[in-house]
Amino acid sequence: MNIAVAQSGGPTCAINASLVGVFKEALKTPAIDAVFGSINGIEGMIKDELIDLKMVIRSNEDMELLRQTPSTVLGSCRYKLPAADEDDEVYRKIQANLEKHRIQAFFYIGGNDSMDTVDKLSVYLRSVGSDIRVIGIPKTIDNDLPITDHTPGFGSAAKYVAATVQEIIRDSSVYSVDSVTIIEIMGRHAGWLTASTCVLRANDEIAPHLIYLPECDLDADKFLEDVRIMQAKHKAVIVAVSEGVRIPEENRTDIVVDNFGHEYLSGIGKTLEQLVKDRIGCKVRSIELNVMQRCSSHICSKTDIDEAELIGSEGVKRALAGESGKMVYFKRLSDVPYVITVETTDASQVANKEKFFPKKWVNHARNDITPEAVRYFLPLIQGEVKIAMKNGMPVHFKLK
Amino acid sequence: MNIAVAQSGGPTCAINASLVGVFKEALKTPAIDAVFGSINGIEGMIKDELIDLKMVIRSNEDMELLRQTPSTVLGSCRYKLPAADEDDEVYRKIQANLEKHRIQAFFYIGGNDSMDTVDKLSVYLRSVGSDIRVIGIPKTIDNDLPITDHTPGFGSAAKYVAATVQEIIRDSSVYSVDSVTIIEIMGRHAGWLTASTCVLRANDEIAPHLIYLPECDLDADKFLEDVRIMQAKHKAVIVAVSEGVRIPEENRTDIVVDNFGHEYLSGIGKTLEQLVKDRIGCKVRSIELNVMQRCSSHICSKTDIDEAELIGSEGVKRALAGESGKMVYFKRLSDVPYVITVETTDASQVANKEKFFPKKWVNHARNDITPEAVRYFLPLIQGEVKIAMKNGMPVHFKLK
Repeated sequence: MNIAVAQSGGPTCAINASLVGVFKEALKTPAIDAVFGSINGIEGMIKDELIDLKMVIRSNEDMELLRQTPSTVLGSCRYKLPAADEDDEVYRKIQANLEKHRIQAFFYIGGNDSMDTVDKLSVYLRSVGSDIRVIGIPKTIDNDLPITDHTPGFGSAAKYVAATVQEIIRDSSVYSVDSVTIIEIMGRHAGWLTASTCVLRANDEIAPHLIYLPECDLDADKFLEDVRIMQAKHKAVIVAVSEGVRIPEENRTDIVVDNFGHEYLSGIGKTLEQLVKDRIGCKVRSIELNVMQRCSSHICSKTDIDEAELIGSEGVKRALAGESGKMVYFKRLSDVPYVITVETTDASQVANKEKFFPKKWVNHARNDITPEAVRYFLPLIQGEVKIAMKNGMPVHFKLK
Repeated sequence: MNIAVAQSGGPTCAINASLVGVFKEALKTPAIDAVFGSINGIEGMIKDELIDLKMVIRSNEDMELLRQTPSTVLGSCRYKLPAADEDDEVYRKIQANLEKHRIQAFFYIGGNDSMDTVDKLSVYLRSVGSDIRVIGIPKTIDNDLPITDHTPGFGSAAKYVAATVQEIIRDSSVYSVDSVTIIEIMGRHAGWLTASTCVLRANDEIAPHLIYLPECDLDADKFLEDVRIMQAKHKAVIVAVSEGVRIPEENRTDIVVDNFGHEYLSGIGKTLEQLVKDRIGCKVRSIELNVMQRCSSHICSKTDIDEAELIGSEGVKRALAGESGKMVYFKRLSDVPYVITVETTDASQVANKEKFFPKKWVNHARNDITPEAVRYFLPLIQGEVKIAMKNGMPVHFKLK
C-alpha cells in the first residue's frame, strides 16, 4: 500500500517534524511502499500534484534538516471542502487520485479547519464504500484546538516568545526615564501564546507586568489605570497583549486614514501605544512579534519538535490499525514529571472549534496569569534542538 | 590604581561582553585594584553613581552569563557633554568623582556620540594637567563608525537578521498565490545591516530579491517596477528595506491621521506595503524586525561576542600603556582566512561621524548587493555561543 501526507493552514516550526514522523514510521513499516507528499495541502490531492517523498528525503541528514526547517515544505492552503451532499465533485476527484496512486491512508497536518477536511473526507469515503483512511495530525501555534492538551508548534512559538520578551525586557530597562513597552503577540481569539509569557516568572522576571488576553474585556480607562499602578512600582513597564484584544469604539485611536483616504486598522499594540502617548505622555513604544513567532526554528523547543514527530508517527500506526476520521492528540498525565500519551478522537470533535485560555488561570484584575498556568506551560518549552549551521546560518531543507 | 567603565547609547548583544573584557583584563593586571561601573553611562560619573564591579561579578559563571546577556547591565544614557570652554561644570564634577575614587582610567563603551565624550573628556583632563586616561570602546549594531573595519554588536545583529529573514522566506513561500513580503531592518542613515542580508546567498537563497539602502535614492515608481520585474520570476517576492529609506513626498502614503487628528509617520515598510496594495493589488505584508535586531542574544555571533570581549581587554592594555583620547578599533588583514588586529585611533576621528555602506558594493540598479560584500560580512556572523539555559529559557545576568 501507499500513503500520502499534506500540510495545511498557517506555518509553524513543527509541521515539518510531523511530516518526518509520518515518513519515518512509513519507512519502518514493511506494508507501506510509496509515501506521497501532496503539494499545497488538499489542493494537491484535488489537482493530482503529488511528489514521491522517498525521492526527495534521501537520508537521515535530510530528515534532521527537515526537523529544523520552519513552515511547510510541501506548501499549504486555506481550502475548505464544500458539503459533500451539495457538491461532491472535489470529493470524487480526490478519491480518484487516491485510488490512481493506490493510496490507502491520507494524513493531514493542520489546525481546526484541516480537521473539518479530515472529518468530511473520511465520512465521504466511508459513504461510498472506500476503506481509504484519513487521519488528522494537529498543529497550530495558537494552541486553541479542543481535546488535545496542547498542539504541536505551540511550544516552539512559546519558547521564542519567552526568550524574546526576556530580551526586550533587558532592552527596555537601560535608560533612566519612565517608559512603557507594549509587545503584541499572536492569537486572534485565544490568548494562549500571550499568556505563556508568564513562564518568565520561573526565571525570576517580574515582567511582563501586565498581560492582556482576548478572552477578557479591556477598555482604555482600565488599561491606563493598570499602567499607572505599575508605573508607581517599575520604571520600565512591560505589557504583553494578544493581537485579538479589542477596546470599545469610543476609546479607539487605531482607525487611521492614509493620504489616499483609506481607513485601515492598525494593531492593538499601536492603539495602546497611542493611548499611553496621549493620556500619560511618557516614552512608549509597541513591538509586534509578527510571523517570527511561528517560524523562528533557530530557537525551537526540542520537546515540541520531538512531540510533533511522535504524533506524526502515531498517526500512521492508528491508520494501519484501521482508524479513520480521527485526530491524534496529546493527553497529559502529569506536569512534574511531565508525562503525556497519544490518543485519538473524532476529527468532528475538533473541526471548526476553538479552545480558549481558561478563566481560572487569569487573575482577578484580568491583567495577569496565575502560577498554575506556569506549571502547564513550562514543560512545553524545554530543550534545544542542536541546529545544523552553515556559514553561520541555520541550514534549511528545501525541495530541489 | 582603580579604573571605571560605563556603557552608552543604544543596546546591542555585545556591550556586556566588552564590559567583561575590561573587567577580566583588570583582574589579570596586578596594578589595578577596584573596577567601578558607572550607572547610566557618563551620568553615573557626573552624579557619583558607581558600583564596585567585583562585588557583583563574582565568578567565571557570572562573566559567562554577562557575555550572553543583551543590552547594558550598567544602564545607558544619551547624554552629550557640552563644550568645555562654554560650560566646564560637569567636567569638574566628573574629574572630582574620578579623583575621589582614585580612578586612573575611564572606559566608555559606545557609538559615535560616546566617542565625542571620550574626545572632549580626555582633552579637558589633559588641559587641567590630569593624567587620568579615557579610552573609547566601540559598539553599535549600525556598523557605521569610521576607521574600524566593523563594530562590536553588528555581527550578532547581522546573524539574527540573516537567520530571521531566512525563516521569513520559508514562511512566505507556503501558499500558491503571488505575494510580496517587505522586511524593515534597522539603520537610519547607513544600510549595513540591511545590506548584510546578502549573506543568505552563501547558503543558496535567492531572496531577498530586492535590497534597499538609505544610501541610494528610491521612488515609488522605481520600487513598483522592481517588484513587478521580480514577480515575473518569483511567486513570493521578498524585499529587505532599511528603516532610513525615504521616498519623495508625492508618492508617500505614510502620513496617517489617527482619529484624534494627529498626523504621524509610519515606517517605510508600511509605506511600501501600502504602495503594493494600492498599485499592484496582490497579497502583501510588512514586517518590522524592531528591537529584536539589537537584543536577540540567544542567536548572537560567537565571533562578535569574542571580539567584543577582546577589544574591551585591549582598551585596558592601551590605557595602561599611557594612551588617552583614543578609540580601540579592528583592522582587517584578510577575509579568508579571517584575520583582524586591534589598533587605536584618535576618538576625534570617530566622534559624531558616520561611515556609509560603500556604493561600490551596490549593484547598478541600486536594488541589490554585490558578492564582494558577502565576503566582507560572512566572517562576522560565524560561530554560536553555547547559551546557558534554565527552564527552557536563556539565563540573563542581572544586578542584584
